[in-house]
Amino acid sequence: MEYKFSDKVSGLQASAIREILKFTADPEVISFAAGNPAPEAFPTEKIAELSAELLRDDPVLALQYSVTEGYTPLRDYLKEWLSSKGCFHSGSDDLIITSGGQQANELSCKVLLNEGDTLLCESPSFIGSLNAFRSYNVNLVGIDMEEDGINLEKLEYALRTEKNVKILYLIPNFQNPTGRTMSLAKRKAVYELACRYDFIILEDDPYGELRFAGENVPTIKSLDTEGRVIYSSTFSKLISSGFRTGFVSAPAPIIQKIVVCKQVSDVHSNIWAQVICHRFMTTVNVPEHFEKLRGIYRNKCELMCSYIDNTFSKKITYVKPEGGLFIWCTLPDDCDMNEFCTKAVRDYKVAVVPGNSFNIRENEKSSSFRLNYSTPTNEQISTGMEILARMTKEMLD
Amino acid sequence: MEYKFSDKVSGLQASAIREILKFTADPEVISFAAGNPAPEAFPTEKIAELSAELLRDDPVLALQYSVTEGYTPLRDYLKEWLSSKGCFHSGSDDLIITSGGQQANELSCKVLLNEGDTLLCESPSFIGSLNAFRSYNVNLVGIDMEEDGINLEKLEYALRTEKNVKILYLIPNFQNPTGRTMSLAKRKAVYELACRYDFIILEDDPYGELRFAGENVPTIKSLDTEGRVIYSSTFSKLISSGFRTGFVSAPAPIIQKIVVCKQVSDVHSNIWAQVICHRFMTTVNVPEHFEKLRGIYRNKCELMCSYIDNTFSKKITYVKPEGGLFIWCTLPDDCDMNEFCTKAVRDYKVAVVPGNSFNIRENEKSSSFRLNYSTPTNEQISTGMEILARMTKEMLD
Repeated sequence: MEYKFSDKVSGLQASAIREILKFTADPEVISFAAGNPAPEAFPTEKIAELSAELLRDDPVLALQYSVTEGYTPLRDYLKEWLSSKGCFHSGSDDLIITSGGQQANELSCKVLLNEGDTLLCESPSFIGSLNAFRSYNVNLVGIDMEEDGINLEKLEYALRTEKNVKILYLIPNFQNPTGRTMSLAKRKAVYELACRYDFIILEDDPYGELRFAGENVPTIKSLDTEGRVIYSSTFSKLISSGFRTGFVSAPAPIIQKIVVCKQVSDVHSNIWAQVICHRFMTTVNVPEHFEKLRGIYRNKCELMCSYIDNTFSKKITYVKPEGGLFIWCTLPDDCDMNEFCTKAVRDYKVAVVPGNSFNIRENEKSSSFRLNYSTPTNEQISTGMEILARMTKEMLD
Repeated sequence: MEYKFSDKVSGLQASAIREILKFTADPEVISFAAGNPAPEAFPTEKIAELSAELLRDDPVLALQYSVTEGYTPLRDYLKEWLSSKGCFHSGSDDLIITSGGQQANELSCKVLLNEGDTLLCESPSFIGSLNAFRSYNVNLVGIDMEEDGINLEKLEYALRTEKNVKILYLIPNFQNPTGRTMSLAKRKAVYELACRYDFIILEDDPYGELRFAGENVPTIKSLDTEGRVIYSSTFSKLISSGFRTGFVSAPAPIIQKIVVCKQVSDVHSNIWAQVICHRFMTTVNVPEHFEKLRGIYRNKCELMCSYIDNTFSKKITYVKPEGGLFIWCTLPDDCDMNEFCTKAVRDYKVAVVPGNSFNIRENEKSSSFRLNYSTPTNEQISTGMEILARMTKEMLD
């Protein structure tokens, strides 16, 4: 038979990054294209110990159906932890455990937007979220970014001209793909616009704890006095990404609807992982664990940046990130970015992600590419960056 | 601020069963209202052993991001296993691991239906699936059931009169809530209608392996020659429900779209659980394990039925199920079912689920209620059924 798919998914494509990642199946290819946590960042021994205890002492808790909202002790822990960071307002907010940050963003969109409603976001932005929004057939409008975050004039222009703007989606800390952090001034300005134009900010903060340089900037959620901010984050970069354990803090009526939608989506998230997350966070020295993670990423980032600084063609520009997993490099205007990225993986066996993959409209021009330093080993970073350096000099100098 | 939710979710309510389950927080209440596997059915020791091995020998596999389609060895195992049951057609079908059977059914709907398209289902049916379909604002039409499955005349009438019928959703084995099994003749007839009226059958089979009496009936999927059947099932009742590990076998183009939708929903399902499922199925004696499960449910079902047969008012009728987790009891016409169920939990401290919870339109009359025998202990079954017996006699005789 001939299959007809729903309008909302018929145009939906698998992430373009996955196409790049196919090249990386070739063992000769060094990949700077992924976005995985460093394998050495997983607290494997502690997880093994906690899992053994749980499956020995309380197996039914780990194996039986659980409640949609999430494991109550983990929710309680998170409410307290997020409160201490201004990211949970007790009295007005509630909190739900989701299957990763991805589900948090997807369900926020499902709950609030009708087909055709407008969702604004930074351009470029995280492709996984963009595709989630696209899968609800919303009007997805990208707003250009500057080094300190979204361009406010262009944002306000969109707010005046686009119809039914319901959500502004932002990754204020170490944005994926640009690694940029939004300034406090812009966070305040964006929140004021949300109040003035009556929309909700979806603040996606998967990397917030991974700041290894510079000063912490308050979250937009911590500035929220009117109940306009949905804050989502995840244990993916803090404990384990394979767990698929994320969380959302938001005004209680929004969480209530997310709970209903999550119930019909997957009933609840894997409960073994939720219990492990709770026991991990309440038995280890958390600041020490986070400091260890920051050390891993600081070192990898500095190693990669040292190659750009010392060996790349000077025509490639970038700004050193203060946290997160990514570096955003920009080619000179007269260089064809797609040709550069294709040549890199095909001829030089080093995979990077072409910047247009993160555009709201993929056919729009980009002269940047994304480098990831969290996944490769130090040796792979050294070898791969030496190759890229040679290539940039041959192509650009 | 005032929150406006999307049209598709604003009318969506949390499962009515959860309201009943609130009563069951009272430790005095004996609950026949849940649908959980028997705790003694979880192979806890084997899972603990496999988990310890995995986290010791291959921790990064269990903790790192994985692929959306699911753990390849588990997919390969399932393809072979399902092939042997006629539920995977190699060459034309593909298979994806989902976050429980729930996600399989939800994504099938998202992928195939626009808002307003028609989805037909048995009435009564599984409330979790019904709510998933409702969350996409589809035209949900229930078709009355008979003891051997859906009423074919009423189905054909709906096919002639409803617009854009895209999916018929069925639970042919030990249906939730009725415990009924669709006859082979009806399975064939329904498939013929699918070919004639050009729609897809979504065959949900979470209980298929839990047949403890009677003869096995071939799945509709095994009759499929035109690529019209999506077959979904789960390890929830076979290994662990807390894992959230389900699977879908369907024509490759449909799986391809489900993969894209799953990627934006939760990236992938918990990978630790997927690896455990694979290692469990390939290292234990599977027929023996399933036989053990059948033994557990056969005994519990017979215990519960013996009370209905021997102690209930004869005015309550039911048909003994041949598998699954549920018994469907019907009250005489002059008895108010809702009053009966409320009285049971409030005055007699025994919780059952009122039949109208499973109706497509909850305000439609039902004179039945659902009993679950898998979750309570044998002692709870005995005590609770004795109480219900007294109550049925007081109210009805």
